[in-house]
Amino acid sequence: MKFYDCTTAPSPRRVRIFLAEKGIELDTVQVDLGSGEQLGDAFRKVNPDCVVPALELDDGTCLSEVTAICQYLEELYPEPGLLGTTSLERAQVSMWNAKVEQLGLMSMMDAFRNSAKGLVGRALPGPESYAQIPELAERGRQRVLQFFSRLDDQLADNAFVAGDRFSVADISALVLVDFAGWVKLPVPEGATHVSRWYAEVSKRPSAAA
Amino acid sequence: MKFYDCTTAPSPRRVRIFLAEKGIELDTVQVDLGSGEQLGDAFRKVNPDCVVPALELDDGTCLSEVTAICQYLEELYPEPGLLGTTSLERAQVSMWNAKVEQLGLMSMMDAFRNSAKGLVGRALPGPESYAQIPELAERGRQRVLQFFSRLDDQLADNAFVAGDRFSVADISALVLVDFAGWVKLPVPEGATHVSRWYAEVSKRPSAAA
Repeated sequence: MKFYDCTTAPSPRRVRIFLAEKGIELDTVQVDLGSGEQLGDAFRKVNPDCVVPALELDDGTCLSEVTAICQYLEELYPEPGLLGTTSLERAQVSMWNAKVEQLGLMSMMDAFRNSAKGLVGRALPGPESYAQIPELAERGRQRVLQFFSRLDDQLADNAFVAGDRFSVADISALVLVDFAGWVKLPVPEGATHVSRWYAEVSKRPSAAA
Repeated sequence: MKFYDCTTAPSPRRVRIFLAEKGIELDTVQVDLGSGEQLGDAFRKVNPDCVVPALELDDGTCLSEVTAICQYLEELYPEPGLLGTTSLERAQVSMWNAKVEQLGLMSMMDAFRNSAKGLVGRALPGPESYAQIPELAERGRQRVLQFFSRLDDQLADNAFVAGDRFSVADISALVLVDFAGWVKLPVPEGATHVSRWYAEVSKRPSAAA
């Protein structure tokens, strides 16, 4: 297997932390998103959607999408389980991972990609070019803050994002908080449960990934 | 279990088709999205994110997010399997379901919700109100067409969206094609593989759900 990564990007970091939690080391190729390497012919043959992370299997099959890659790795390397251990827990992990992705990470990407000076004409990842939409950047910022409030309610009653066990939903939320901080959307002071949880999960060795 | 549905909305239709494929009938409650019932106190207690579908378990636990609901139902009712039968197949189904969702369905919702006259101030589902962004509607339309082209490439080499077996990724793509047609984004004539696949999957009895 070969893991296509980019150390500065949030999506592949979700897989890196997942790998670190399981103690897996994969043959890793860095894709230079800064110079547009993901749009070149060589990487397009690996993943025609031109995004990282991607996991190339030994027979040449390519898996993309963070959730699919993590699901595949969980089956190959089940310990420690990061996708839940009962039917209900698996569904709750999946649900919370989807909420973090759709309400949090996508809002954060709207905020970032529609305002960053280096991404003019690149408001979306992938092979097509799209103009930035300033109103979408502003909407993204509002939505990230609203999601922190939603997450705070959840973490008021739960040790971790999807319940009482660390899971892939915590990994996604940790990547959200770190990247949001980087684009000047820090966790609001009133979100004390998010802050408590963040202090704990960011101390795990995997958070360095 | 209680299934919270709305017969006119695309997201719960994904679950309805999934249930129909498995021959499951659930106690179903219609939520009237037209009158804003999803934002009222009663439904907010079921799902604070104010969206359907939602699946309320007998102990009161609520599952939302289509993918999580389908995963839970697949474990309870494994036959016929709709999420793949091997590690690789499960990852490919998950990957394609995510692509249909993120590149197709979300683009279609951007196109629809940012232009529909009845959704002024409701450009996103959920408890918060957001203004429509006309540029986002236009971008959504372009992205849906681009996704149909991407799907056509995939269906040129595969009987079904995620490979040689009908799966939840076909259900998501069928709902996309039907809803996109409804908002005047029909499958382009050149996308002959999508048309061949659509003719087949829309003949299945579950497509009436």
